[in-house]
Amino acid sequence: MSRVYNFSAGPAVLPEEVLKEAAEEMLDYRGCGMSVMEMSHRSKVYDDIIKEAEKDLRDLLSIPDNYKVLFLQGGASQQFAAIPMNLMKHKKAGYIITGQWAKKAYQEAKLYGEAVELASSADKTFSYIPDCSDLAITDDMDYVYICENNTIYGTKYKTLPNTKGKDLISDVSSCFLSEPMDVTKYGIVYGGVQKNIGPAGMVIDIIREDLITDDVLPGTPTMLKFKTQADNDSLYNTPPCYNIYICGKVFKWLKNMGGLEVMKQRNEEKAAILYDFLDQSKLFKGTVVKEDRSLMNVPFVTGDEELDKKFVAESKAAGLENLKGHRTVGGMRASIYNAMPKAGVERLVEFMEDFEKKNLK
Amino acid sequence: MSRVYNFSAGPAVLPEEVLKEAAEEMLDYRGCGMSVMEMSHRSKVYDDIIKEAEKDLRDLLSIPDNYKVLFLQGGASQQFAAIPMNLMKHKKAGYIITGQWAKKAYQEAKLYGEAVELASSADKTFSYIPDCSDLAITDDMDYVYICENNTIYGTKYKTLPNTKGKDLISDVSSCFLSEPMDVTKYGIVYGGVQKNIGPAGMVIDIIREDLITDDVLPGTPTMLKFKTQADNDSLYNTPPCYNIYICGKVFKWLKNMGGLEVMKQRNEEKAAILYDFLDQSKLFKGTVVKEDRSLMNVPFVTGDEELDKKFVAESKAAGLENLKGHRTVGGMRASIYNAMPKAGVERLVEFMEDFEKKNLK
Repeated sequence: MSRVYNFSAGPAVLPEEVLKEAAEEMLDYRGCGMSVMEMSHRSKVYDDIIKEAEKDLRDLLSIPDNYKVLFLQGGASQQFAAIPMNLMKHKKAGYIITGQWAKKAYQEAKLYGEAVELASSADKTFSYIPDCSDLAITDDMDYVYICENNTIYGTKYKTLPNTKGKDLISDVSSCFLSEPMDVTKYGIVYGGVQKNIGPAGMVIDIIREDLITDDVLPGTPTMLKFKTQADNDSLYNTPPCYNIYICGKVFKWLKNMGGLEVMKQRNEEKAAILYDFLDQSKLFKGTVVKEDRSLMNVPFVTGDEELDKKFVAESKAAGLENLKGHRTVGGMRASIYNAMPKAGVERLVEFMEDFEKKNLK
Repeated sequence: MSRVYNFSAGPAVLPEEVLKEAAEEMLDYRGCGMSVMEMSHRSKVYDDIIKEAEKDLRDLLSIPDNYKVLFLQGGASQQFAAIPMNLMKHKKAGYIITGQWAKKAYQEAKLYGEAVELASSADKTFSYIPDCSDLAITDDMDYVYICENNTIYGTKYKTLPNTKGKDLISDVSSCFLSEPMDVTKYGIVYGGVQKNIGPAGMVIDIIREDLITDDVLPGTPTMLKFKTQADNDSLYNTPPCYNIYICGKVFKWLKNMGGLEVMKQRNEEKAAILYDFLDQSKLFKGTVVKEDRSLMNVPFVTGDEELDKKFVAESKAAGLENLKGHRTVGGMRASIYNAMPKAGVERLVEFMEDFEKKNLK
C-alpha cells in the first residue's frame, strides 16, 4: 500500500487513522458480529454511534442547546431548496453571490419566492469577498444567505455580513470544522461533509430551534421539512448510517488532535507555507486578494494554460493528486483540508519550486 | 472476529466477501493511493466504478436501453414526494395500500394532488395482497402505485395489478434483486438499497425515459427532478460515492453467484425451510396468507407476547440477531435477504424447534 498526497476539493483526503479503524471494524464492529453497514438504525449499538457523533460535534463547535443538529441526505444542493421551503415565510430573502454555489442557492430560491442579490463579486471572477457592512437588506426579508468558504474560487469571509438583524444562513461545506466558529451568530450553519469531514452522501444542518416549524411552504416534501427530521432526531427514515459513523470517527480524531483551535493553528501554518511561496514566486501566482484567502482551497495559475497542464500532469506523476483547478475555472487548486498533513503541503511547495526552476523562462 | 446471523429488516446483512474486499481496499483502492471515500467523483477511477456498477445492474435485471438508472439520495421516503412531483400531470393517481410504506407514499402524494386508494388490506392487518384484477382506475390517473414487497407485514405481490394501461410505479426496496423481474412492465421501479443491496443512504430509480421530462409540478426542487439527475448521470452534485461503490461490489457478487435466477432458487429454498417449519409448528405460526408470502421477510408469532419476548432474548443470546418484529407490529420477523446464507436459516429453525420443545405447554 502506498498513499498519495490528495489535494482533491471533495470528496477529499480523510485521516489515515480513521480509515484504518474503519477497515479493522468492517466485518465486526467492536465484537457485535456485524459491520456498521449491516446494523439496524434502531439498534442500541447504532444509537450509541449516532448519539456520540452528535455529542462530539456539539463539543467541537460548542453548539448551544437551542440549536438542533441534523444529519441529512442530498448534499448542500438539496438544502438550496429546503432552506427557502422552510424559511421563506415572506417569500423574500437576500443572497450574497461569491461563486458558483452561492449562485446556485440563489437561483434555487427563486423557485420559491423573491431572491434578492445583495452583493456579488462576479465582476472579478469571484476573486474577493464583497463589502457586506451596509447591504440593502429590507425588513421583509426572511434571511440573508452566504457561502462562507468558496471552494472553487478560494475565498472566505473573514468578517460575517452585517445582516441588520436578519438571520444569517451559511453554507460552510468547505470550511466546516477547519477552525472554531460562533454558532450563535447564525440561524443555520450547514454543509456537505465530503470536503472536510467524511464520505459523500450527507449534509449536516445546525439550526436554531425557532426556525424549525410546521409553517413551511405548501408542497414541501416531508423529508425536506426540518421539523420532520428534528422531531425524529434524524431517524425519520433510515439515515446514511455508515456515513454518520465515519463522520463520528473524524469528530473523535479532531477532539484527539486538540479541537478546532489547534486545527486552526495547523491550517494557518499549512496555508502560510503555500501562500508565502506563491507571494514570492516568479512563475506561480495566487488568484485571490490577500485579505479574503481561504485556508482550505488555494487556487493558483502560471498564466500559461499549456504550462498549467504540464504542471498538473507532472505533479500527478510525482504523487501529488487532484491539483487541477475546477472544470469551470482552469489553472490549479490545492485543497488542504484538516486531514492533509503539513508534510503534504511542504512536498507540494518543493515540487513547485523545482517546477519553477525548470520552467521559468 | 465472530460474525452473527443477522436477520435485520434493514440495514441488513451483506455478503462477507464484499465486506472483506472493502476492508482490504479501504486505504488504497487498487493501487491509486486513496480510499474510494477520498476520491473526486469526477475522477477517471471513480467514473469507472459508477459506470461499472450501472452496467452490472443493467445486466442483472436486463434493463432495456429506454430506461434510465439513477443513483439518488434520501431513501424511498423522498421518492414518495419525487414521484408525484414528477409524474402527477393530471394531479391524480391510484395507490394500493398494502402496509405502512404504501400508506406513507399515498399520504405524501396527497400534498401534490388527488391520491385515490384503489384497494387496501388494512382490514386484516395487511396480512394479504388485495385482488387487483379489476380496480377502479380512471382515465385521468397519472399512474398506479404499489409497494411490491411489504417488509413489515411479509407480503409480496405474486401477480402485478391490472393497471388498465396506466404506468405502474413500484417500490421494490425489500425484494430488489431477490429474483428476476420484467422491468418493461413498469414505469418506475425503485428501492432503497439498505435491505438487499448495500449501505443505507441511497435509492436506485429505474425510470422509463418518457417519464423524465421538464414538465414537473411548480416548486419541485432541482434535486428531486428526475431530469436533473438523468441529464447528469446521477452526478448533478456529489453522489453517495462510497455507497455506490459497495452496491457495485454486491452487483458483482450477484453476477458471480449466477445472477437472479440462481438467487431466486436460493431464496425459495431458504424461505421454504422456514415456512415449512412454521406450517407444522404447534407453537409458532406465520402471519401471512400462504399465497402472498414474501421470500424476504417472514413474520411469525407464538400468540403469547411474553413468550415472543423470551424468544427474541434467547435467540439473540444464541447469535441470531434482530428477530424482533417491527415496533408497530410486535412478534418476530426473520428477514432472509440474498446475503443470508442457508446455514443461517437452518440454524434459526433448529433454534425454533428447540425453543418449541422447551416452551410448548
